[in-house]
Amino acid sequence: MARVSQEHLDARRRQILEGAARCFARNGFHATSMQDVLKEVDLSAGAVYRYFSGKDELISAIVKGVLAELVTVFEEVTRQSPPPPLDELVGEVLGRAMRIWGSLTIDDAPAFPRLMMQVWAETARDPDLSGVMDEVYGVVSVAWTRVFEGYQDAGMMRADIPAEHVARTMVAAVQGFIAQQSLFGPVPVEVLQDGLRALMSMAAPRSDA
Amino acid sequence: MARVSQEHLDARRRQILEGAARCFARNGFHATSMQDVLKEVDLSAGAVYRYFSGKDELISAIVKGVLAELVTVFEEVTRQSPPPPLDELVGEVLGRAMRIWGSLTIDDAPAFPRLMMQVWAETARDPDLSGVMDEVYGVVSVAWTRVFEGYQDAGMMRADIPAEHVARTMVAAVQGFIAQQSLFGPVPVEVLQDGLRALMSMAAPRSDA
Repeated sequence: MARVSQEHLDARRRQILEGAARCFARNGFHATSMQDVLKEVDLSAGAVYRYFSGKDELISAIVKGVLAELVTVFEEVTRQSPPPPLDELVGEVLGRAMRIWGSLTIDDAPAFPRLMMQVWAETARDPDLSGVMDEVYGVVSVAWTRVFEGYQDAGMMRADIPAEHVARTMVAAVQGFIAQQSLFGPVPVEVLQDGLRALMSMAAPRSDA
Repeated sequence: MARVSQEHLDARRRQILEGAARCFARNGFHATSMQDVLKEVDLSAGAVYRYFSGKDELISAIVKGVLAELVTVFEEVTRQSPPPPLDELVGEVLGRAMRIWGSLTIDDAPAFPRLMMQVWAETARDPDLSGVMDEVYGVVSVAWTRVFEGYQDAGMMRADIPAEHVARTMVAAVQGFIAQQSLFGPVPVEVLQDGLRALMSMAAPRSDA
């Protein structure tokens, strides 16, 4: 029997996940059948089922892949102490998050935001997926909390508000911004950076500056 | 033939929409059949189809109903000039938005965030719904833009950033916060208010205050 290299197995696995992600982003999780996925990746059922038992396992593997990439992004970006200015940091994190699955497009727009909408919708109905999403949120939330604690330690942000609350707010802004890409079309990340700069200017009236 | 009062027609219509909303929030749009809706509202097919031709019309009517309520909320809340402090304003808007369909619960949690997730997922696939959502975003975005222009006019926020960008950022934070209620369970609105207060303190280091 011919030995198949690990490299080949990984590439094949990735090919299947990308095809499934395109299908889910395009038509949603429920309107996609395994037949659609087989057709999209142009492989036999045997070749695909060797890696994944079905749609549930595919979507879970996709979300876990995003999780692994997000961990890397945050580890690289939040290494500095004190952290870089918030607007710069958000630009870096969001820019890199949007490049996850960046080669995946639908109608010439990035598929990632649309895929995320489908995953969110499915999370409410699937306890396993819900567990994976909790894990994603945990990682992202802890990373942001560490960032805001860094600002507090450096006297750059008021210290009497739990950093977890600021982290949750920041995650919400980023989640909502990605949702908007799916709902209303692509928007440059500079818009969110502008918005944060304006909010950060609100404490003291400009006339006092 | 007996005349049926407008009041009765409106109540019946509302009853059908609430039942459909519960079904969509619980099981998603695609896994819900018209049979499920009939069973949920305990009405005959004839009684329901008199009002709505099918699932597409139901979801579109639900979103339009939310739109109408959001317009009222914003008209009432953003009447003041200059606007009240941002954290108070967000608490008021979000508190009232969460009470839309507030009587609708699933597993003792508000159904509105879960319903919204399903609507967002469906928007990518349904051009009509996408049009309605654009209208919702337009209304909300214009209202927030007016608020931030108010802050700029009053010298409460830097004036060199387009108010539209701040509005989009604020809408993202609120959208993301509602998405989190669906993904990770209920969180009090005070968490978002805290987060905004902390962001608003970031311009000047606290040691200079």
